[in-house]
Amino acid sequence: MRPSPRLLCCQAATMDGEPLSALCTPALVVDVDKVKKNAKRMIERCEKLGVQLRPHMKTHKTLECADIMTGGSRRCIVVSTLAEAYFYADHGFDDILYAYSLPFDKVERCAILSERLELFQVLLDHPDALELLQKRPLKDGRRWHVWMKLDCGNGRAGILHSEPGALRLARAIAETAGVQLTGVYAHCGNTYNCKGVWEIQAVAKETTSFTLQFLEKLKAVGITCKSSIGSTPSCSHPVQDMAKLSEVHPGNFVFYDVQQSLIGSCGVEDVAVRVLTRVIGHCPHRNQMLIDCGWTGLSLDGAGKLPTGYAVIEGHPNLKLLSMTQEHGRVEPISGKLDYSMYPLGSLLTLIPYHACATAMMHPVYHVHLEGILVGKWTPTRGW
Amino acid sequence: MRPSPRLLCCQAATMDGEPLSALCTPALVVDVDKVKKNAKRMIERCEKLGVQLRPHMKTHKTLECADIMTGGSRRCIVVSTLAEAYFYADHGFDDILYAYSLPFDKVERCAILSERLELFQVLLDHPDALELLQKRPLKDGRRWHVWMKLDCGNGRAGILHSEPGALRLARAIAETAGVQLTGVYAHCGNTYNCKGVWEIQAVAKETTSFTLQFLEKLKAVGITCKSSIGSTPSCSHPVQDMAKLSEVHPGNFVFYDVQQSLIGSCGVEDVAVRVLTRVIGHCPHRNQMLIDCGWTGLSLDGAGKLPTGYAVIEGHPNLKLLSMTQEHGRVEPISGKLDYSMYPLGSLLTLIPYHACATAMMHPVYHVHLEGILVGKWTPTRGW
Repeated sequence: MRPSPRLLCCQAATMDGEPLSALCTPALVVDVDKVKKNAKRMIERCEKLGVQLRPHMKTHKTLECADIMTGGSRRCIVVSTLAEAYFYADHGFDDILYAYSLPFDKVERCAILSERLELFQVLLDHPDALELLQKRPLKDGRRWHVWMKLDCGNGRAGILHSEPGALRLARAIAETAGVQLTGVYAHCGNTYNCKGVWEIQAVAKETTSFTLQFLEKLKAVGITCKSSIGSTPSCSHPVQDMAKLSEVHPGNFVFYDVQQSLIGSCGVEDVAVRVLTRVIGHCPHRNQMLIDCGWTGLSLDGAGKLPTGYAVIEGHPNLKLLSMTQEHGRVEPISGKLDYSMYPLGSLLTLIPYHACATAMMHPVYHVHLEGILVGKWTPTRGW
Repeated sequence: MRPSPRLLCCQAATMDGEPLSALCTPALVVDVDKVKKNAKRMIERCEKLGVQLRPHMKTHKTLECADIMTGGSRRCIVVSTLAEAYFYADHGFDDILYAYSLPFDKVERCAILSERLELFQVLLDHPDALELLQKRPLKDGRRWHVWMKLDCGNGRAGILHSEPGALRLARAIAETAGVQLTGVYAHCGNTYNCKGVWEIQAVAKETTSFTLQFLEKLKAVGITCKSSIGSTPSCSHPVQDMAKLSEVHPGNFVFYDVQQSLIGSCGVEDVAVRVLTRVIGHCPHRNQMLIDCGWTGLSLDGAGKLPTGYAVIEGHPNLKLLSMTQEHGRVEPISGKLDYSMYPLGSLLTLIPYHACATAMMHPVYHVHLEGILVGKWTPTRGW
């Protein structure tokens, strides 16, 4: 497919109505229909389960996608950086949970948001963090809304659910003046090691069970609060016990990606994002061709994970994205000789990303389309 | 080191005179003194060798660093994206070489720059690209300035130096109306597989020799043009033969990184960039701690390359950056038990990046300091 004469570049104004082939490459393209379907399915799944959905913004970091994920309410979201929190707050969003172990350098900025928004919530997993909140009482009789992060087997942030210190910390939060224990928060990121619904649900069940057991222990000492677990795999295939939780907080599901399809969260047909790229070199002496997507357009996530290399090249199952440098990708056939007549210089290829969060992060703008026709641009926020 | 009460975040206005510890993390910090030293050394090395330095902008993509690299002339640079070309052109730079195999979707934008600047130069390695230039003659009697990309063993873009087609293409460029063969361009990226000066110089010598031999072949058919080779390793340790080239085009040298120190291009003490990060979690049950730098702050480049993981943690040779997720890094000791009293929550750690190009790409702003005191911010361009 030769490029059309009118070409849109990432800096250019959106020209709605143009086909995807009008884009300069590399370009991140978002199928808004799939985004809406993915969002709707998750909203309905949570309604049916009777649990509050608090979608995570970290994958896309845009206003438009946040509107879709919240059904237009602009309420009840979770963010991974304080830059996201301010971005959404500045655009009329509220009830924002900054689900990141309270960073000691950002307490003052968290306090400002807590005093400005109706409901800004922070998270912590260490007594020293609680001490910092105590030292910065909020104005106007407001209280810090605090989730305690529990590690239920994920092995990243959070205080181990089985440790006596966990109960001590939860009680300390609940009993500290100017601070409120809003809930207990667990991220079951260990679902990313799963293969298939059965394994996903085993982790979801375990995380839910540890979280609910912890709530029981709290109840036994007279403390009640909310609970939340999350991850796209577990929330794509929730177990019945999750109905007993207050909230869930998946994020990636709005885009999905090849990784999620391999875990079993979705089918490849549900993946809403692609990177468009063009052939820029023929290298018959090494049976390869070059594309204009390097790691600046895709990220290095997924190395060694796929037989097709760093991505799936849509419609070309015999092609492998072997390696990337800053602005180049090397593509070769998995077997046989490359037929260069099928891939003239300038022809388009479509990459399905291994990890949508990592790929989206590389793009200053996302090109949004409906059935291959451009309908707008989404601009993410960046930084911390 | 506990954070100071006044904290600067990536979105905040620069507060010159503050110490680095005032920055919110993760933050990319640039030692401007080292940048200037690295730039000066390369400028002097090229002057001594008698070869024109055309520094590459791809590592930093900022105006300020470009000024330092060009000694304030704002002339004679090389870029990796057309977005960079426009960014620099819009800010008074000229004599810009877009050293990227002519992308078929960007010919019109290249033509516009060629008609606007005194000297905008493109690169190609295929007859089809030449054909496209022919179809878009420049206005006002201007000619396309074309470098031909030669692959001298690097194995990425470029027509193989030993192929008969290479000479045919060079002749075709030289003989096509409206097009001028400006030079022959080879990137010795294969120096990145070297260890030590001897190996680097062997590659530099070979690339130079193949390039000069090709120029001889051109001379034999009555064609003269410029020549350029590049890469930070080869230009950090140039061989005498490189004096016979017209230009060299290294880029990374202005920052350097751990990778360059391992190749032998520089010492670790020459590396001008760091990522500041803070401890945000203690995980004694698995002998780890968490830092607030994930792959959004460092990139995933360098996986499996260093005994210290994804980076070198400055001043802490026993620490390893084991893994990263979007906003978290897992740090553990290489041997023994972690002494958490040495790393209280909120304490600063300093990461020396494995690959400065990849790390810089993740940051919307660079914080510039002189001996640890902030002196400004540099904002890179992004996109294509």
